[in-house]
Amino acid sequence: MSEGIRPARGEDWARIHPFWAAIVADGESYTYPEGLTSDAARALWMEPPPWRVVVLEEEGRILGSAKMGPNRPGRGDHVATASFMVAAAARGRGVGRRLGEDMIAWARASGYRAIQFNAVVATNEGAVRLWTGLGFRIVGTVPEAFRSRRHGLVGLHLMHLPLA
Amino acid sequence: MSEGIRPARGEDWARIHPFWAAIVADGESYTYPEGLTSDAARALWMEPPPWRVVVLEEEGRILGSAKMGPNRPGRGDHVATASFMVAAAARGRGVGRRLGEDMIAWARASGYRAIQFNAVVATNEGAVRLWTGLGFRIVGTVPEAFRSRRHGLVGLHLMHLPLA
Repeated sequence: MSEGIRPARGEDWARIHPFWAAIVADGESYTYPEGLTSDAARALWMEPPPWRVVVLEEEGRILGSAKMGPNRPGRGDHVATASFMVAAAARGRGVGRRLGEDMIAWARASGYRAIQFNAVVATNEGAVRLWTGLGFRIVGTVPEAFRSRRHGLVGLHLMHLPLA
Repeated sequence: MSEGIRPARGEDWARIHPFWAAIVADGESYTYPEGLTSDAARALWMEPPPWRVVVLEEEGRILGSAKMGPNRPGRGDHVATASFMVAAAARGRGVGRRLGEDMIAWARASGYRAIQFNAVVATNEGAVRLWTGLGFRIVGTVPEAFRSRRHGLVGLHLMHLPLA
């Protein structure tokens, strides 16, 4: 049995999709379209190389997933980006932090000069605290760029971590 | 003969592609991959709705093109974004400004609440001056996020204009 963080396999999607869809439907952290079919969502998350997709598995359960790759093509492909999804049942156990630390290590080992998160919802305090704690700074906040289900129009932070 | 700014037609691409490719190859303003085939570049620029693609035509020549649409899907689709390409031979004649003003009017009429440009190269002084002059402000600058051919690693501005 594989434990810990490992590359996602095609057959993992059936166990990623339930929490992925629940997080999108919750409407507090991602701008993915709502109501996607499982196949459409898979195409957005399980991207082929140069993207890397991982899961964190413990005791046979997938607790979270992350995807990571170049933030831009061409003359911007020296900056990495990533997205993270943690199952609601696994919150508060450091899953996001472990996936984040793994992503930073991967980006550094892959030769990226920096990591950029383009759209961290300002009211997503757990995420802001996590990334700030790992050394990211808020480069700027786009006002009212996210329609939060509970909070209405809120800002999106652009967060940045130099690696070089 | 059609003059001024109008929606791009499929057959326009053959006249857009030469300056589009020259601007990308120049390496000072866009992170599109270099060396794309014409078909691959067309797929990135001539996107279907909800994207809108326009050209500015004068005296039978296409002087510039712009594409515009939602900056993000889902809960971010109330913010528009756009990209602009002006043929080198037509610089300094206000083509970018006319395309920019048209884009702002379109975004306003379409009900977008704001416009966001995600990656304005900090050394692209003409672009920074143009957008600042049209009311955009720099929300933040991602350091060293663009590999300029002439200047090396330079910043990318995130620029924002509220419409609501």
